[in-house]
Amino acid sequence: MSLLVVGSVAFDGIESPYGKVERALGGAATYFAVAASYFTHVNLVGIVGDDFSKEDAQIFRGRRIDTEGLERTAGKTFFWAGRYSENLNERVTLTTDLNVFATFKPKLPDKYRDSKYVFLANIAPDLQRDVLHQVKKRPAIVALDTMNYWIERTNAELRETLKHVDILMINDSETRQLSSEHNLLRAAKHIFKMGPSTLVVKRGEYGAMLVDKRGVFCVPAFPLEEPHDPTGAGDSFAGGFMGYLAGVGQKSDVALRRAMVYGSVMGSFTVEKFGLDRLRHLKRNQIHARARHFAKLTQFKL
Amino acid sequence: MSLLVVGSVAFDGIESPYGKVERALGGAATYFAVAASYFTHVNLVGIVGDDFSKEDAQIFRGRRIDTEGLERTAGKTFFWAGRYSENLNERVTLTTDLNVFATFKPKLPDKYRDSKYVFLANIAPDLQRDVLHQVKKRPAIVALDTMNYWIERTNAELRETLKHVDILMINDSETRQLSSEHNLLRAAKHIFKMGPSTLVVKRGEYGAMLVDKRGVFCVPAFPLEEPHDPTGAGDSFAGGFMGYLAGVGQKSDVALRRAMVYGSVMGSFTVEKFGLDRLRHLKRNQIHARARHFAKLTQFKL
Repeated sequence: MSLLVVGSVAFDGIESPYGKVERALGGAATYFAVAASYFTHVNLVGIVGDDFSKEDAQIFRGRRIDTEGLERTAGKTFFWAGRYSENLNERVTLTTDLNVFATFKPKLPDKYRDSKYVFLANIAPDLQRDVLHQVKKRPAIVALDTMNYWIERTNAELRETLKHVDILMINDSETRQLSSEHNLLRAAKHIFKMGPSTLVVKRGEYGAMLVDKRGVFCVPAFPLEEPHDPTGAGDSFAGGFMGYLAGVGQKSDVALRRAMVYGSVMGSFTVEKFGLDRLRHLKRNQIHARARHFAKLTQFKL
Repeated sequence: MSLLVVGSVAFDGIESPYGKVERALGGAATYFAVAASYFTHVNLVGIVGDDFSKEDAQIFRGRRIDTEGLERTAGKTFFWAGRYSENLNERVTLTTDLNVFATFKPKLPDKYRDSKYVFLANIAPDLQRDVLHQVKKRPAIVALDTMNYWIERTNAELRETLKHVDILMINDSETRQLSSEHNLLRAAKHIFKMGPSTLVVKRGEYGAMLVDKRGVFCVPAFPLEEPHDPTGAGDSFAGGFMGYLAGVGQKSDVALRRAMVYGSVMGSFTVEKFGLDRLRHLKRNQIHARARHFAKLTQFKL
């Protein structure tokens, strides 16, 4: 089933204790699309400037990623730079140049308008809603990511958008901020009243947690001895999660649990190297082997 | 198989957003013994003052807990008081009156000296080692808890004691402090060189993680909507963990994984009410039902 993603395509400057890259391809939609393309066909909507070269666009070639919705316009591509702390558990943003992203108005090519699975990456809530209006039929699953900036500054817009969302995928602190509730189970109940029926909480080194009316499912983060760069891990998680669901065309409890595992698998690969260096070179058997490793990591017999 | 525990028996003053108790029975060895007694016979070594009444001692009655090793002496019982933050994720210590605990010299009654399973709760490392010297034969499993105080002030003593330990059970920050290593896999490798062959990291609301030469096993914390009081959760975890292992007399990978689950089960019950209020009134079928709930929380099919 076709999976639509709308979000940023960007260049990132990354500093971590393991090295430094001045300008690597990045952006939420890029990580998402590459991760999801191992599972399903992806329709990408985003914007880049005229500094986005043919070599840059290679990231999408030879994969099941349609880039008709990737707008090119005069100006520079979104640039973000950040520095990670020694333990990779904190980061400071050094630069955020929105550039052409500042005036981004997502436009869905006609052939994208019957997408059954939709992922609204972290952009302004009114733009996220505008994307949903361009999809012809109510999709099977709409998932959304957001951040503290939108929760604080465009809360009413975000609330309006959330009415049309099935799965909210955010981190712990965003969950707590949005719901004004520290306890994640109580937070989930608040969020269910806003629209979503499923909450996926991304917890970084502690893994991820899915809450819906059936209960809770937890998956740990894959233990890595040498994590290099957490940039894009959450978007890769989302790509693996939604890619798996769109690929199988299901939303049963069994499928959602598998999606959590494949999300965690893709996030863990991303962290292993800088930028997209690991994610772009995966083989399907590596993905499945790591999923089996997650089983070893968590399963027990009573 | 008999399980020996050495550690504090105390009174606790606890303040949390859910209420306040001025003087509740507590202490690491108390939580441990009560939790473990649901699985096996426990030999308790500790010290109390003459303010420890017959009513207080009721906590150990009607359970498989031998208190011949609980010394009574003139003076007051160890008293600790603390206050939890609104979200229960931070606490400040208000009072630490060691009282009779300050001069505690653990003495094992003769019948305890053939214990096969030993848990050295958080006390001075030289006392922990002295307990091991009193055990006749090398036990099947020696597990140890410690804290930042001993890691900082008696590091050489602790290192000496760790040479005789199989399982180290500490929290994230203690793991990082002891190993001078943030990454938990790398930390585990450092710790294996100190003696223990297994590291159990207690991560509070994020659950627990076991690392040994075979790999990693993760178990989440049980999601609770209304946690009341985290006091004793780690010691109850240790009690469930060691109680299970001693009960079955095994240390296979399968047994260690189950022990992690039963540890998490006992910790989760403790947090539900103040002090020992929940832990002391459990039924075996409630324990097993919660263990099955942990399976639901974590298991998936690929």
